[in-house]
Amino acid sequence: MKKILFAIDDTSECERAADYIIDFFGAMDCCITLIHIKPEFVLYGDALLASYDEVDDKEEKQAQEIVQKFTQKFSEKGINTTFMIKEGEPVCMVLEEANNFHLLVIGKSADSFFNKIFSSNQDDFITKAPIPVLLVK
Amino acid sequence: MKKILFAIDDTSECERAADYIIDFFGAMDCCITLIHIKPEFVLYGDALLASYDEVDDKEEKQAQEIVQKFTQKFSEKGINTTFMIKEGEPVCMVLEEANNFHLLVIGKSADSFFNKIFSSNQDDFITKAPIPVLLVK
Repeated sequence: MKKILFAIDDTSECERAADYIIDFFGAMDCCITLIHIKPEFVLYGDALLASYDEVDDKEEKQAQEIVQKFTQKFSEKGINTTFMIKEGEPVCMVLEEANNFHLLVIGKSADSFFNKIFSSNQDDFITKAPIPVLLVK
Repeated sequence: MKKILFAIDDTSECERAADYIIDFFGAMDCCITLIHIKPEFVLYGDALLASYDEVDDKEEKQAQEIVQKFTQKFSEKGINTTFMIKEGEPVCMVLEEANNFHLLVIGKSADSFFNKIFSSNQDDFITKAPIPVLLVK
């Protein structure tokens, strides 16, 4: 069975990518894993002690909401998904996990994960990616 | 039925991309079209009149060989493909045809079509591509 890794974030382009996956791969014998990377954040001085837990809770809540939204989107079409939430530098985190999959799907938009890659080190990412990468607008 | 456009050239990475398509999409209800773009060439002065037909014949022969090689690769696995050979600027030609398909597959290597795109105007290409693009190393 083919294993697809789908990097999700809170953009409409990423939702379109989900629609595309459902349409294109829905009838296929494959398993889909959603991966969401929580952004790293850095607080300085006193703000660090005061706010870390608060910010961390907020990030975790947002991550859970995003994962739930996409999980539901797939399950409404009869497609079961699994998910993972990671924290760190998005490119590194996704590439690390990608080793265990046959295909990595990324939505493309100005705000998306795709753009974070492609505005900085796109060729590097594609070169490093251990598996084929599908870019969906 | 999903329509896949596969941009082929004479690189080992492109052959690996073919293997990937066979493995990943082989069991799926889809039709695969191979597209090969013959390079544009420019001759100057007397060389133009003397050599145009000769160079053109050679390019055409190479294009036919590449298409045959890939057609056979797929048919050996029981997968029928159609093909088209075009001449011109590769990026423009492929993007023009892509409108009629659901997925564009490109092999990535230093010498491949992918690199011709990504060494010049990668972001532009992905932005312009009317359909999702699958990059296979």
